Amino acid sequence: MASGLEEKKKRVVSGMRPTGKLHIGHYFGALQNWVRLQNDPTYECFYFIADWHALTSDYADTSAVAQNTIEIVTDYLAAGLDPQKCVIFQQSLVPEHAELHLLLSMVTPLGWLERVPTYKEQIENVTNKDLHTYGFLGYPTLQTADIVIYSEEGTPLFVPVGEDQVSHVELSREIVRRFNFFNGFETKAALRSQENFGSYKRALAKLASDGPEGKLLASTAASKQKWIDPETVDLSLFGVPVSEWDLVQSEAHQLANRIGLENFLQRMGEEAIFFGGLEILVEPGVMLTQTPRIPGLDGRKMSKSYGNAITLSESDDDIRKKTKVMVTDPARKRRTDPGNPDVCPVYDWHKLFSSPDTLKWAAEGCRTAGIGCIECKAKMADHLIEWITPVRERRVQYEQHPKRVLEVIDDGSKRARVEAQKTMARVREAVFGWQKKRKEVMSDGVES
Amino acid sequence: MASGLEEKKKRVVSGMRPTGKLHIGHYFGALQNWVRLQNDPTYECFYFIADWHALTSDYADTSAVAQNTIEIVTDYLAAGLDPQKCVIFQQSLVPEHAELHLLLSMVTPLGWLERVPTYKEQIENVTNKDLHTYGFLGYPTLQTADIVIYSEEGTPLFVPVGEDQVSHVELSREIVRRFNFFNGFETKAALRSQENFGSYKRALAKLASDGPEGKLLASTAASKQKWIDPETVDLSLFGVPVSEWDLVQSEAHQLANRIGLENFLQRMGEEAIFFGGLEILVEPGVMLTQTPRIPGLDGRKMSKSYGNAITLSESDDDIRKKTKVMVTDPARKRRTDPGNPDVCPVYDWHKLFSSPDTLKWAAEGCRTAGIGCIECKAKMADHLIEWITPVRERRVQYEQHPKRVLEVIDDGSKRARVEAQKTMARVREAVFGWQKKRKEVMSDGVES
Repeated sequence: MASGLEEKKKRVVSGMRPTGKLHIGHYFGALQNWVRLQNDPTYECFYFIADWHALTSDYADTSAVAQNTIEIVTDYLAAGLDPQKCVIFQQSLVPEHAELHLLLSMVTPLGWLERVPTYKEQIENVTNKDLHTYGFLGYPTLQTADIVIYSEEGTPLFVPVGEDQVSHVELSREIVRRFNFFNGFETKAALRSQENFGSYKRALAKLASDGPEGKLLASTAASKQKWIDPETVDLSLFGVPVSEWDLVQSEAHQLANRIGLENFLQRMGEEAIFFGGLEILVEPGVMLTQTPRIPGLDGRKMSKSYGNAITLSESDDDIRKKTKVMVTDPARKRRTDPGNPDVCPVYDWHKLFSSPDTLKWAAEGCRTAGIGCIECKAKMADHLIEWITPVRERRVQYEQHPKRVLEVIDDGSKRARVEAQKTMARVREAVFGWQKKRKEVMSDGVES
Repeated sequence: MASGLEEKKKRVVSGMRPTGKLHIGHYFGALQNWVRLQNDPTYECFYFIADWHALTSDYADTSAVAQNTIEIVTDYLAAGLDPQKCVIFQQSLVPEHAELHLLLSMVTPLGWLERVPTYKEQIENVTNKDLHTYGFLGYPTLQTADIVIYSEEGTPLFVPVGEDQVSHVELSREIVRRFNFFNGFETKAALRSQENFGSYKRALAKLASDGPEGKLLASTAASKQKWIDPETVDLSLFGVPVSEWDLVQSEAHQLANRIGLENFLQRMGEEAIFFGGLEILVEPGVMLTQTPRIPGLDGRKMSKSYGNAITLSESDDDIRKKTKVMVTDPARKRRTDPGNPDVCPVYDWHKLFSSPDTLKWAAEGCRTAGIGCIECKAKMADHLIEWITPVRERRVQYEQHPKRVLEVIDDGSKRARVEAQKTMARVREAVFGWQKKRKEVMSDGVES
């Protein structure tokens, strides 16, 4: 099934909320690019339906989410996403997202969430829903979990976004950095090798020079000037039920927490090379995507709620009917006025759907008043219909066989879950260390 | 394994954070009561280690959580909890808690969390940790999930708490009520039976009398004065891809959301009987627990961080040494001064550990200056040691066989998970309705 994915070297994650049928704005704003990426053998792509995200604002009436999920996957497939080339899945079928979200929530500062521009904007502008909820505030943390649960060690992870979404990815990077620091800070084993005993003593002295924990160290480990083999250490020497090495690691982590990683490494000076952060989760990178301009029928941003969109399943009749009344260059009032295609939504659409010849015909005809807007729109509609026909045909295929859509969802979600579970195994070990602890317990001498 | 649980009629859920070994304060404040409840055949008890909760404040250094989890389960067992009579489990081994937490977070108003007294108090008073995190704010939502994931339809659910914890359970009740309202609001099927057609028409008219959604209804369903069998309904009649019945349900839910359930039911008048809320999750009840007073060695609240506690594994020597310097009635300065046992911590301890004879001896001896404090403490220590011996012996047994402790955790967590999964199946269906949707898709006529 995923046989073609092995050679892929970078991962891409993106998703949409299940709000209903997709329109051509979604296609040119995202799907077109998703299809391009699935066909690039260097990328392994994960595309999902963010059904839990739908609840952050639509918790009061969730009755449409399941049907909308089916609609949106149908549109994914109609647009050309191929389950053989990418992983299409449903967020809530990979419950590991919720667990990672919970763990990330512990390290996410409230202020980071409160300062997200879209949060403040929506809280102020959305009046028909009460968005003063804990879940809505945590949206960026859930989004971070959705992305970085597809972390793989040593594999770059990308989120294809437009300029306006860059700050969200940046926030994800910061949350991951903080998580990695708290859970992946490491005192490297090389520091306890015999040959580095000089560095070990100097590092201990530097740890001991700071605050109450430093004093603790000074009274136990640091005052001893002899090398202790951590494997054979006599715990009673320290009067604490941890080995000197555990103590050193804990002290180093605490000091780094207190003064920050950079200050810590600076203080360690030459010994800094023995400390560092493990990459438990991969910081996601921005994959800036240039998308063409595709205004709605009325010239505003295309949106289902404005009623100014053409869906991917729109009929020929409706396309003709809707484009006939499309907004054009407002300065061209009469048929005899010359127009400016650069400010005309119809011309923006021509650029996406029409042939170079038609494009030239439209621009010249508009500027010289050689053609009228009605003529120009009809021609554009011809090309739009030509473009949409294969998409719509694929859509009808899946509409008539919704079981196949469910199979795509189920199969993709299973594949996504395998990857998510690998990441969570690594995350759980970094947070709680049960594998290590169980090994300790199991190899315990006084065992039954 | 759980064979004794079938006849139990009420559920009890409680947990502790893994902060290390437990002391006698934990025993008399909680464990004693937990043991009593496990032995009562009318209760099915779930006792857990809240390891995720530990992260809400200790996210910066999680290295002790695993060992502390082992310690605390060892103490549970030492105190008399019996895995044959109750379910002992580790929170993070039942990942469904995280999923329910996420779903509850969607309906939890931010203000409810911000106003929790202990939240404000800790944000102000805890200075050695940065508690301004998303996870710490969400503590009560996680706590709610921990409890109500053990909901079972028709089974009362209780949380044994002291007076100071009542407001937390009340908050859980409110979150559950809100969740049940949004996800369990129901227009009863009886409303669409032929015999209730009069009620149906009146209910429609009442729905249609309000706002824009009302107008929608008025233009479709409510204006039709004939009975439509929802099974054979001709969708084209309505120009919308939902049946009239779906529309009525949706309208009713929306109106109830908008004006509140009580106002809604009032408006429905005689028709109110056809609407209501399903109990998806059970509202937990408070089980008020009277616990004896057990001050610390210095008279303050007993707490590990004050160094004024006696742990359940304390040695005889340490018990004698520590109780010897225990605080007594501060007014009794000299051996010859009579004292007041009612204000003496040592006397509080006598009440818990000593025989009636000793109790009488201590009270009289103190009031008459017949005995000295040293003598009184030594006698109390004798009885404390007598009390603690079997507990400590059980503890040593498990300390020497930590594998058995891990088995208890693993086995209990598996049993807890079975129950949690049942609840989550119900919750997911209430939120997304995929079972219903899949059935619809599968029985679709035009299927491949």
